Amino acid sequence: MDIAAYMADVGQQARDAATAVARSTTAVRNKALLATAEALDAARDELAAANAKDLESGRSSGLDEAMLDRLELTPARVDAMIEGLRQVASLPDPIGEITDMTFRPSGIQVGRMRVPLGVIGIIYESRPNVTVEAASLCLKSGNATILRGGSEAIHSNQAIAACLARGLSEAGLPENAVQVIRTTDRKAVGELITMPRFVDVIVPRGGKGLIERISRDARVPVIKHLDGICHVYVDSHADPEKALAVAVNSKTQRYGTCNTMETLLVDEEIASDILPLLAGAFREKGVELRGCDRTLEILTDVTAATKEDWATEYLAPILAVKVVDGLDGAISHINCYSSQHTDSIITENYTRARRFLTEVDSSSVMVNASTRFADGFEYGLGAEIGISTDKIHARGPVGLEGLTSQKYVVFGDGHIRT
Amino acid sequence: MDIAAYMADVGQQARDAATAVARSTTAVRNKALLATAEALDAARDELAAANAKDLESGRSSGLDEAMLDRLELTPARVDAMIEGLRQVASLPDPIGEITDMTFRPSGIQVGRMRVPLGVIGIIYESRPNVTVEAASLCLKSGNATILRGGSEAIHSNQAIAACLARGLSEAGLPENAVQVIRTTDRKAVGELITMPRFVDVIVPRGGKGLIERISRDARVPVIKHLDGICHVYVDSHADPEKALAVAVNSKTQRYGTCNTMETLLVDEEIASDILPLLAGAFREKGVELRGCDRTLEILTDVTAATKEDWATEYLAPILAVKVVDGLDGAISHINCYSSQHTDSIITENYTRARRFLTEVDSSSVMVNASTRFADGFEYGLGAEIGISTDKIHARGPVGLEGLTSQKYVVFGDGHIRT
Repeated sequence: MDIAAYMADVGQQARDAATAVARSTTAVRNKALLATAEALDAARDELAAANAKDLESGRSSGLDEAMLDRLELTPARVDAMIEGLRQVASLPDPIGEITDMTFRPSGIQVGRMRVPLGVIGIIYESRPNVTVEAASLCLKSGNATILRGGSEAIHSNQAIAACLARGLSEAGLPENAVQVIRTTDRKAVGELITMPRFVDVIVPRGGKGLIERISRDARVPVIKHLDGICHVYVDSHADPEKALAVAVNSKTQRYGTCNTMETLLVDEEIASDILPLLAGAFREKGVELRGCDRTLEILTDVTAATKEDWATEYLAPILAVKVVDGLDGAISHINCYSSQHTDSIITENYTRARRFLTEVDSSSVMVNASTRFADGFEYGLGAEIGISTDKIHARGPVGLEGLTSQKYVVFGDGHIRT
Repeated sequence: MDIAAYMADVGQQARDAATAVARSTTAVRNKALLATAEALDAARDELAAANAKDLESGRSSGLDEAMLDRLELTPARVDAMIEGLRQVASLPDPIGEITDMTFRPSGIQVGRMRVPLGVIGIIYESRPNVTVEAASLCLKSGNATILRGGSEAIHSNQAIAACLARGLSEAGLPENAVQVIRTTDRKAVGELITMPRFVDVIVPRGGKGLIERISRDARVPVIKHLDGICHVYVDSHADPEKALAVAVNSKTQRYGTCNTMETLLVDEEIASDILPLLAGAFREKGVELRGCDRTLEILTDVTAATKEDWATEYLAPILAVKVVDGLDGAISHINCYSSQHTDSIITENYTRARRFLTEVDSSSVMVNASTRFADGFEYGLGAEIGISTDKIHARGPVGLEGLTSQKYVVFGDGHIRT
């Protein structure tokens, strides 16, 4: 198979379909989403059979349990895909919204209209439900999509693609508005991220390695989501109860998520009082602590942290703890080691909260709230295609708006420039 | 000179300065702008002397007149730089603006705060006044800047840089907040566009060749401004007077600008009536017409257009003319040949205007207005760093907002996620 030629076809078909999707009405796009939900519900057996194939070959090729778990399409996960489609259909349509319409001294009227980006390429790993999640957000926002899932999920993804195609055609939209790449050849990814003529933006979803590789090689803009090294800073003016609740929740509510706290910073002024309480709470939860020298003076049973610990996303019940010289120490540590994902200050002091908000350069900055709130649903975006750790285009949780652009619209009455 | 080492120093200094600028108040940044204006006014002799050096070596190295003209810093251009600085100082500060603040069901309060991008690299050609223009917009929007001007303007740019340094230090800001690269070695550009650690975005200003080269080689996001192949479509429902006024103004108000019309599209239904009127008006202005076959049937004295004409940005008194099959023909021609810069429809028909606005995929879409209005000042942005023909991050005229990003701010009261 000539991968370059195949991908060029896929790209051209996506580009053509994008025009049709961009012109389609809200009702038509919602119909496609709801019809896909129906199609998935009707195809549970086919989905199970296709997924069984993937699981079988996954086992025989020795995928680990975590991988196999992500690969599995349980009935509950199919339900979730169906529910997700209905939720996305129920979201307000961002496309066509006109804002900032003003009259200019020249007499022309200028505003901005929200429009789709065009063609969005999604590259992801084993979880097949991402196929529906990503496609539904791109479709709702008026874009065409090219999806490249993990090769181990190829049968499941094709079965899901068939349901998407059914939904699209029932709504009268071109089936090519959502294409799932049919080959598992890695060359296809290389082509996908180097076709600016056909692809407007790439959204990679998966491990840091995947995203770094794609960002390095892409010739198309990439909405990246790198690691989440999140901090909670307990200020000397913190309410101890809030500090304990937020710190424990930020670390232990889930260990494997990017908005989980990885480093706890404590103001030296209160370290000796509050660190033992925090350590006790974390011990109860079975979290291993790794402390700086000053932490070790207070918590004698804690292992010493190395420089790497400050730059590590554990995604595990391990927490780095550092005693810092007040707010300035906290901000400089965060701006040095944070992945600019999410950082939170615990304080009752207005001025320190205000400074933390302004001076911490992260995509989400919080006061007296758990870092676990950094999430598209919690923020009210309705859905989330990822969390951008970039500053360009989209920053933080990326919802439908992040998959759109704005063009200027100008109304005149024969106006000319003089 | 070790260019890589030098640029790494420049980058690190810019990164450090960016933190100080981002934290500075509106008043301080405005003071730096106004102090720079004073410094330029006081340094007119030094500027003239430095510019004379550049002009002299330019002449001896055989630069053409157009190039020498762009290179020259006339007293009027110095006045314009000073006035520009005062205008930028008077613009509202985008930084720190908090929008969309809402309470979520969880009880947290979520909003978005506008923040600087960080370090912006500007690469431009011979015009030294760009040094002040670009630096002032980046500074106003809280960013640090690294400027790389044309080597032929090195003395002028260094003289301007000295004034910027004076203005910054008078306001108590680090002089490295604006750095003009001291070497003319082309390697410096290669380094500048491949330092993601130190540079957040590159804004190239200049010819298509420069911008394509930079976009191809950059490892940093680029806000590109490629060519402007702009269209005016005269619909069969057009008011002939408005059609003539807008078409003539779009082409002839200035020939060398990116928002100048390069192709005129005429609805076949009215071609035989209106083309002779348009041709007469353009003949008066000395504009050469190049027509499609159907145009030639109506305008017998016009030369035939080739396929290349539809894809050419003349920047000259030449205009391609095509008779199209109504609105659909116009939209498909535009979406095929337009550079997605600016396109305008002349019509009194509501439905056709509405369709044109929705279906033409360009950064500025107009009804009954001259394409020449596509400009940051005309749109009320106050100033313009360029006109983006991209869809990512910024589209169309890019003002201060395009040099910023938004981060999420979350206010809680010990809220945890359950």
